[in-house]
Amino acid sequence: MRVPTRDCVQAAASRIAPYIHHTPVLQSQRLNEIVGTELLFKCENFQKTGAFKARGAVNVVMQLSSDIQSLVTHSSGNHGAALAWASGLRAIQCSVVVPEDASPFKRRSMDRYGATLIDCGQDLESRESVLEEFVKQHVATFIHPYDDARIIAGQGTATMELLECEQNLEQIWVPVGGGGLASGAVLAGNGTVEVVCAEPELAKDAYLSMQTGFRQPSLPPITIADGLRSSLGEINFRILKAAKTRVALATEDSIRRALNLVFETMKIVIEPSAAVAVAAMLDNPSLVAKRVGVILSGGNIPYPS
Amino acid sequence: MRVPTRDCVQAAASRIAPYIHHTPVLQSQRLNEIVGTELLFKCENFQKTGAFKARGAVNVVMQLSSDIQSLVTHSSGNHGAALAWASGLRAIQCSVVVPEDASPFKRRSMDRYGATLIDCGQDLESRESVLEEFVKQHVATFIHPYDDARIIAGQGTATMELLECEQNLEQIWVPVGGGGLASGAVLAGNGTVEVVCAEPELAKDAYLSMQTGFRQPSLPPITIADGLRSSLGEINFRILKAAKTRVALATEDSIRRALNLVFETMKIVIEPSAAVAVAAMLDNPSLVAKRVGVILSGGNIPYPS
Repeated sequence: MRVPTRDCVQAAASRIAPYIHHTPVLQSQRLNEIVGTELLFKCENFQKTGAFKARGAVNVVMQLSSDIQSLVTHSSGNHGAALAWASGLRAIQCSVVVPEDASPFKRRSMDRYGATLIDCGQDLESRESVLEEFVKQHVATFIHPYDDARIIAGQGTATMELLECEQNLEQIWVPVGGGGLASGAVLAGNGTVEVVCAEPELAKDAYLSMQTGFRQPSLPPITIADGLRSSLGEINFRILKAAKTRVALATEDSIRRALNLVFETMKIVIEPSAAVAVAAMLDNPSLVAKRVGVILSGGNIPYPS
Repeated sequence: MRVPTRDCVQAAASRIAPYIHHTPVLQSQRLNEIVGTELLFKCENFQKTGAFKARGAVNVVMQLSSDIQSLVTHSSGNHGAALAWASGLRAIQCSVVVPEDASPFKRRSMDRYGATLIDCGQDLESRESVLEEFVKQHVATFIHPYDDARIIAGQGTATMELLECEQNLEQIWVPVGGGGLASGAVLAGNGTVEVVCAEPELAKDAYLSMQTGFRQPSLPPITIADGLRSSLGEINFRILKAAKTRVALATEDSIRRALNLVFETMKIVIEPSAAVAVAAMLDNPSLVAKRVGVILSGGNIPYPS
């Protein structure tokens, strides 16, 4: 198991710079008043493919040997779209194992980027068996959505950019699912800033893993934050555990409220998984520092009406 | 009747600079493909109070003599919120005559900025009689929402900023209601770029006014573009007429489609009135040039679910 370092994030930043957006950092006076602190939002909803996942995906694809012609991964949508987009940059074929309950909007997006979609059940077992079957029958290289040093290093560049643009941040709040964004943030922060993970109460395996010191299985995939239903990766957990990373939980109601707040005050579109960081701050005001960076992880939802 | 010039827009730009946002210009590869041209979006939905109206309002307020303590205007929401916000900067009281069918979201916003709301009927007659009555009974200075040289000059700064940031634009598309934004754009463009007005078919008084050469009354206020229901102002019409400004119409279906497209591809929130410019391009592809600026006028809608 290869655990990436801050140098890997630095290297990834140079490697992916030609392909990704240096996303803007936005502020909202009204949201600052509501949350009671100074918030700086890194808008990865404006990133290529609509989520930070483009960073890790292109960081992997640009390191592949030229004989690789086909990739496969599993994803609820954003990583799949990102890997399909990145693969397209090198004319590599990309297949994605997608749970049957995945967002139709994200399915269309993966399809638009040229991915071949393979259905699987909602639970991890089904996901892994369908993937195993596919790899047996095809010549395809498996790219794990988050438990991969190259992916983690790529996702870390979002936090690195934010820290380069904004001085004196006390915390970075990031949503945690598999832990790619969160463990990348810990590497990028390099101990100079606290990374706080935000997780839906209905998917609190990361919370329980940090509490018990052992990686816990994922819970039933029922939170509206569809990007955060998967369980922590092994490398990801090791990095978060070494940094004694805190996990703050958010209720479904708070996630919905955060979605509305960001929409109505900032006039930008984020998906439920991205709203979890704001929701966790609303639910845990005592954990929030005075000057806080927030990674808005993605914005891939249909017009809600 | 005082008709403003380009110099007034230049002066307004310096006057309001300390108070307003220099809003970003965004692009979307997918929207370019869908519309079939290169689009540069000036995001006034990110402006103070959530709409370009903040520009004209603060340009007026900062020129008022110090003995003025109370203002009154009429508005469906955005101008009212902008004038209330600007008045607050000088501790001036602000009252707004609001049609009974105005958006509750915009009412809350005006209220939050400290405006006193006075209800009136949906038609122009009721609006004017209620305003007249108010002015009789109170010591308040009436600020017209668009038929005012200072307002027009202020709104023109949005186009001026866009032209300063982006070279070689062939057209600027702007929504037209009362004509503050549109006539200000004509002044800022100063003949170097074509300004195309976009108007809902259900509120095509500007279109008919340009066709006939005479200012036409407003139509029944039924378009979803609630900010564009009013009729062209006198000064505004004079400026648009002198420039032989073209008006492109948009159906309600196209306005809804444009709302969804901007939401899903750009991940930003705009209100129906702002979507009219994109909708009119979808409905009139033959009128669209190769490199086009678009003013996204505002983003004041509630989360649509």
